[in-house]
Amino acid sequence: MSKFNEIAVDLMRRTAAYVPDFDFEGADPATADKPWGNWLKAELGFRNHWYPTEASRNIRNGEHKAIKLLGEDILFLRRGGRLYAIEDRCSHRGTRFSKRPVCYTDDTITCWHHAFTFNLDDGRIRCLLNDPDTSLAGRKGIKSYPVREEKGVIFTFVGDMNPPPPLEHDVPPGFFDEDVAICVADPYLVKANWRLGSEGGYDPGHHYIHNWSKFSINARIPMTFGWVSKKEAVLETSIYELKENGPKGFTRLASETTMSMTARIPGRNGADDKEVILPIAAAQTPSEMELLGQHVPTTEVGEWLPCGLKVDPWPFPGVIHNEYYVPRDADSHYYFQCGWRNVENEEQAQEWAEGDLGQVRWKVPVVDDFTVQDAEAREYIHEFYASEDGWNQEQTARFDIELLMWRVFAGEHCRGIQEEKHTRGHFKR
Amino acid sequence: MSKFNEIAVDLMRRTAAYVPDFDFEGADPATADKPWGNWLKAELGFRNHWYPTEASRNIRNGEHKAIKLLGEDILFLRRGGRLYAIEDRCSHRGTRFSKRPVCYTDDTITCWHHAFTFNLDDGRIRCLLNDPDTSLAGRKGIKSYPVREEKGVIFTFVGDMNPPPPLEHDVPPGFFDEDVAICVADPYLVKANWRLGSEGGYDPGHHYIHNWSKFSINARIPMTFGWVSKKEAVLETSIYELKENGPKGFTRLASETTMSMTARIPGRNGADDKEVILPIAAAQTPSEMELLGQHVPTTEVGEWLPCGLKVDPWPFPGVIHNEYYVPRDADSHYYFQCGWRNVENEEQAQEWAEGDLGQVRWKVPVVDDFTVQDAEAREYIHEFYASEDGWNQEQTARFDIELLMWRVFAGEHCRGIQEEKHTRGHFKR
Amino acid sequence: MSKFNEIAVDLMRRTAAYVPDFDFEGADPATADKPWGNWLKAELGFRNHWYPTEASRNIRNGEHKAIKLLGEDILFLRRGGRLYAIEDRCSHRGTRFSKRPVCYTDDTITCWHHAFTFNLDDGRIRCLLNDPDTSLAGRKGIKSYPVREEKGVIFTFVGDMNPPPPLEHDVPPGFFDEDVAICVADPYLVKANWRLGSEGGYDPGHHYIHNWSKFSINARIPMTFGWVSKKEAVLETSIYELKENGPKGFTRLASETTMSMTARIPGRNGADDKEVILPIAAAQTPSEMELLGQHVPTTEVGEWLPCGLKVDPWPFPGVIHNEYYVPRDADSHYYFQCGWRNVENEEQAQEWAEGDLGQVRWKVPVVDDFTVQDAEAREYIHEFYASEDGWNQEQTARFDIELLMWRVFAGEHCRGIQEEKHTRGHFKR
Ligand code: FES
Ligand code: FES
Ligand code: FES
Ligand SMILES: [Fe+2]
Ligand SMILES: [Fe+2]
Ligand SMILES: [Fe+2]
Repeated sequence: MSKFNEIAVDLMRRTAAYVPDFDFEGADPATADKPWGNWLKAELGFRNHWYPTEASRNIRNGEHKAIKLLGEDILFLRRGGRLYAIEDRCSHRGTRFSKRPVCYTDDTITCWHHAFTFNLDDGRIRCLLNDPDTSLAGRKGIKSYPVREEKGVIFTFVGDMNPPPPLEHDVPPGFFDEDVAICVADPYLVKANWRLGSEGGYDPGHHYIHNWSKFSINARIPMTFGWVSKKEAVLETSIYELKENGPKGFTRLASETTMSMTARIPGRNGADDKEVILPIAAAQTPSEMELLGQHVPTTEVGEWLPCGLKVDPWPFPGVIHNEYYVPRDADSHYYFQCGWRNVENEEQAQEWAEGDLGQVRWKVPVVDDFTVQDAEAREYIHEFYASEDGWNQEQTARFDIELLMWRVFAGEHCRGIQEEKHTRGHFKR
Repeated sequence: MSKFNEIAVDLMRRTAAYVPDFDFEGADPATADKPWGNWLKAELGFRNHWYPTEASRNIRNGEHKAIKLLGEDILFLRRGGRLYAIEDRCSHRGTRFSKRPVCYTDDTITCWHHAFTFNLDDGRIRCLLNDPDTSLAGRKGIKSYPVREEKGVIFTFVGDMNPPPPLEHDVPPGFFDEDVAICVADPYLVKANWRLGSEGGYDPGHHYIHNWSKFSINARIPMTFGWVSKKEAVLETSIYELKENGPKGFTRLASETTMSMTARIPGRNGADDKEVILPIAAAQTPSEMELLGQHVPTTEVGEWLPCGLKVDPWPFPGVIHNEYYVPRDADSHYYFQCGWRNVENEEQAQEWAEGDLGQVRWKVPVVDDFTVQDAEAREYIHEFYASEDGWNQEQTARFDIELLMWRVFAGEHCRGIQEEKHTRGHFKR
Repeated sequence: MSKFNEIAVDLMRRTAAYVPDFDFEGADPATADKPWGNWLKAELGFRNHWYPTEASRNIRNGEHKAIKLLGEDILFLRRGGRLYAIEDRCSHRGTRFSKRPVCYTDDTITCWHHAFTFNLDDGRIRCLLNDPDTSLAGRKGIKSYPVREEKGVIFTFVGDMNPPPPLEHDVPPGFFDEDVAICVADPYLVKANWRLGSEGGYDPGHHYIHNWSKFSINARIPMTFGWVSKKEAVLETSIYELKENGPKGFTRLASETTMSMTARIPGRNGADDKEVILPIAAAQTPSEMELLGQHVPTTEVGEWLPCGLKVDPWPFPGVIHNEYYVPRDADSHYYFQCGWRNVENEEQAQEWAEGDLGQVRWKVPVVDDFTVQDAEAREYIHEFYASEDGWNQEQTARFDIELLMWRVFAGEHCRGIQEEKHTRGHFKR
């Protein structure tokens, strides 16, 4: 097996016993403690990572926005042209700044309740407006968050590593390539734990849901009953990466995956089988089918820590879809979506990011339509996992193997687990 | 006392010490552990019983409806003319079928998420549409529920006895008589625990509430300040039944109950007493009173496991009112009501069940009016019992004796108690 | 230090270590168990005190109103010209009387469910309408509450002392003076724990919020960045009172408090400081400023058990503002406000209480405007204290010293702490 990616082989060995029909020589036996224990703990997200948070255009100079990440309430403000992210809670007696953010200078915020005044960059107390000689000046007041803006995306670092590791390690490969332009959709709230997004975005078996997408139907994109992940296909085309100096995750070529548009429901007691054809497939002429068949195999899909998916190409050649399931709290996440395109100059980049091109080739078919199905599907399994013991009750199928491999990989190579104690009101001063 | 129903005597002996003014020779002393312990545990209902669930007409062929019973989420579907009831949650990853039930054949359902396909009758996995060779085929996937439809009512068995006991043991006597036609009202939700329905539907003392019913007022039905259950009357007219092969419950003739339409509030410190006359009584001429007095004594009231009440006749001679308090969850139940009438042929049965007759003689006065007061009264005591320690704080009166007897009887002769572990997500595969 | 109020000195000694920059000789060292432990326990209010509850005018003869105080659900009724307060829950089976209060006589209430009939004054069972001979007659049924009405205010005693201590001990001094007329505002609900009202109403540092009050802006009242409580000023002007036979609390002359309308935000790294002037201050001519400066120093502020604030004068000379933060439950309190004025005769009293005078000189500027900012500020810190460990996480400033002193004083000299067990459903019969 040495011709395969070693990490993939190792992950498969440890998870093979948890799905049926997976004859893997030397597989570890199933145990009560599953090998994805860290994944189960990560209800509030992975700590010490960068997260895409908002489109830069949505917080203009002088504006602010309160956003909750991994259970932490954060206030974003742009002042004097610079973006800041601070705890949305005064250290004095807990007042929410976001109700009325007062900035007498471009680098401070003054609490509207008793006028404690903080540095926007490091959160330290600058002064008390009513007590100039206070010894609190210079002391830590509120928590501040490292932010970076790249290609129109605001990224926030949630954790306590100082300095934080490079943002470049927390986005899928290629994002920072010079010739890649990014079209950013407005993020929106999905009422499901972020892990259901992270599992479901990749999940090979879930493609069936897209038969109900208007884009699939109108554009006659041939969906399937779900891809099947056969052992050989998975091993041959999965490449997990663990470079010290780069993003951690995997890519997988979809070309080797069986995609069938017909299926058979066996009859019982001697009755005939029922042949089922996907409506979309039935609507294609044979030559159309062939044409589309050529398109699909080139798709490369992959996931990257902490919570990013990359599909190359999608939905059209030359476009890459990149989405994130950003933890908000135990019961919701933000759906953050980017469309990538190779461009040759700034004009083309702008046309893609802000003009009609990105809208027509990516946002309208994907964000406004196709992935709405994904968001919906996650919401419909949240209750099961959140309050019905779903993590123990799920009945896995063969095609879930890759999902379990991702659980193990992500849980082991993330930089930490966000816990309740890291969230509201528990910051050290 | 041997001339009385032995079960009634036994129940009275065990509960007499818990009400005032009940001089019962040989009564058991009151203890901290009340003899109706099982009743206190049965917050989610009695397990292993049949429950009326919906009117047959409300789930037509091709339609479906999601209904929660005893904390279990159930999907009802009619396909190929046959009614099915299955767990509304896919065994794979918990998706709710009811969001988009896909039935490629009349005897299967396919999950819209990853196309797991289940038998509608036994819940076993028929096949995976994207993995025809899966070894999961034929294995238990989801829970399925026995259903029966009789006289326009869908009954569902909630429990784990296999086969289930006869439905005939779980409905009040007479329901299945050939000449009895049933008019079924649409069930509706009451925001109160089901036991408050079961106690309150029978409760002799609660008749006072019906003085505020428009039906009582408009039709000048003489309500009271509540019936009083005197020891002799209870013993003389109560017949509890515990046949091995039939429904378990009791009937009681209301004729022997004191019903007064006037009352007296004693004055204090030498002040005069205040004579109180029910408004309804005041509105009757003496001859009207006499006429109505003749009607009431013939009323036979009774309760039957698991949660059915039968009042014969009500509201007019020749009509029997039969209602059920079907447990939904700890804080709500369905109010399921049936009107019975003796008929001579199919035409008469239809006129009663679907025509104007059942509407005018039963549904409009009773379901749309009179019992609305009952539903309301249950909602107004729910908080006390659910979160204010009501089961220990209640201050019983003499007329509560029969209610306590029913608590003991029902708790002892039900087939089991529904527990949290039986509900969502805890089904064995 | 003997020239200062001894109680104030003692309170300061015990709290000085919990604020910065407070050089107090002989101060107790800070400990993990703070000296205001009772304050932390009093989430539901102080037990065995009188509370202002409603304006007399809002419950007229024949009317009723259900109000929750300290977690207890109470029904107020006026019958035969007399005001009563009883538990809003029938002792029989918990029915809420307030849904349909039936009073056949002026001194009884009959439960609309099973006709239990109770004395309105002592809550004892008068009779059962359907069981005249019941031995329950004369027994304790429901809880009743002492009420008193003074100067248009309904006061209610919540606790179990019998007889209750005098109401006169639970209102700020002067309320009962013969020449004091009271204008009562309709109380309203604030979604914050009552202690945040009690701390925030007095809180010297919170004056900054009133820069956003329309009254301050329109009338050009010179607000500040918050008063600063210097040790000397606090000691010299604070007088705590602990008379056996009178209200317990304190007064403090605001005259000795530094009030600045300009402030300075220090620049960093050699940058210039930023001079900040309150908009209101900038809008005043120097002579106006001087004029207003003369007005302020005469203000006397004080708090009194259980939850009353008195500001003399406010907002104009000759008017006293008196407000209460009446505990409703853990997450809300009623804001009860009174305006006082000295009058010479009944006509003047009436003009103040009901005519245009009280409206224009007190209610419109204060209740409808100025104190709305206070209510809002309390709501914006409630989450921090209720669920974010705020009582341990707060970062106090020097000007918080008086607030901590009040916590200690109030917690030690209240008559008791309301607990969950005193509230719903736990009354002894
Ligand atoms: S709460 Fe912010 S300064 Fe007091
Ligand atoms: S959740 Fe139903 S098939 Fe996956
Ligand atoms: S609940 Fe009030 S009399 Fe029964
Ligand atoms: Fe998808
Ligand atoms: Fe009734
Ligand atoms: Fe204020």
